[in-house]
Amino acid sequence: MSEANNLTWHEGRVSRQQRATLLGHDAACLWFTGLSGSGKSTLSRAVEEELVIRGVHSYALDGDNVRMGLNGDLGFSAADRTENIRRVGELARLFVDSGAVVLTAFISPYRADRARVRELIGDGFVEVFVNPGLAVCESRDPKGLYRSARAGEIPEFTGVSAPYEEPEAADLVIDTGAHSLDESVALVVAWLVQRGVIPA
Amino acid sequence: MSEANNLTWHEGRVSRQQRATLLGHDAACLWFTGLSGSGKSTLSRAVEEELVIRGVHSYALDGDNVRMGLNGDLGFSAADRTENIRRVGELARLFVDSGAVVLTAFISPYRADRARVRELIGDGFVEVFVNPGLAVCESRDPKGLYRSARAGEIPEFTGVSAPYEEPEAADLVIDTGAHSLDESVALVVAWLVQRGVIPA
Repeated sequence: MSEANNLTWHEGRVSRQQRATLLGHDAACLWFTGLSGSGKSTLSRAVEEELVIRGVHSYALDGDNVRMGLNGDLGFSAADRTENIRRVGELARLFVDSGAVVLTAFISPYRADRARVRELIGDGFVEVFVNPGLAVCESRDPKGLYRSARAGEIPEFTGVSAPYEEPEAADLVIDTGAHSLDESVALVVAWLVQRGVIPA
Repeated sequence: MSEANNLTWHEGRVSRQQRATLLGHDAACLWFTGLSGSGKSTLSRAVEEELVIRGVHSYALDGDNVRMGLNGDLGFSAADRTENIRRVGELARLFVDSGAVVLTAFISPYRADRARVRELIGDGFVEVFVNPGLAVCESRDPKGLYRSARAGEIPEFTGVSAPYEEPEAADLVIDTGAHSLDESVALVVAWLVQRGVIPA
């Protein structure tokens, strides 16, 4: 017997429905996935801003801020990438439970990892594939990462020397090569309104 | 060079002040600390409910729900307890950054761990020592844990066979032996109003 054997899930006393009624919108997790340079983080931050202005309680998590804090102990091996996504999934679940629209921007290259998060979060999970194509991502290369990866200076770089498993049935696909940032934000917001997650 | 070398903190484009203005209240982390059976989790859930009813975006995290999810890989050794509190601190920081009043209920027995969280979260961190005294906690013993610990069936049980380092300068001390749950909730809410965290 240990303290660990005695854990029971405390249902929050405030139900998800009560929270939605009080907040005036539903909770959701918009899971942005795509290659480095695809625009995931930029798009998720822009959608976050638009939602906050509309009075929707929303919050964007991305590889950079979560990697430096909660997941500061993890690297980029396959096992650590999987643990990174597991923790982000749990984190997103808590934000959804709090009534928020949470936006996550992580490469999350493995299909199995994303499927686990979808199962964990359940209703409200929205997979957004940010996909301008590898050539566009590589031409943007804001931090020179693709150049370094092609030069062999970065081992296991997704899309170059490590796999990216594309979503087979994303809820939403955004080609940030064909659409401007404003257009891309409008596409995501329109989807949320159409599905009744947020009011028009 | 690796992907890890290229992490930079993305400031959210929505400032804390903008969020506070839109939400109508400030963000905070109420960190409830105390022995098993002190009433931390019950009190934090009751405060959460009262805040949600008042239109304050709030969310309660506790040992049980976080331990089963995000921290499901951790045990109860001193090192794992420290890692547990580190992750909860990072989690709470993200909720504070989102504009919420987050309430955490963890034994968090080590002074150094709590000090690290205070430093991490900075402005808005509120240490709430839930302290009815060991005798009251032990007499409640809702899960029979103290009895098992006294019988030597639980190694490293806080307050019996593992240390609890009491706060030396808690922002708020609640004696849940002397006060009812409703009174205890009122004390916490009054403190938040007095400090201007939430409107009256």
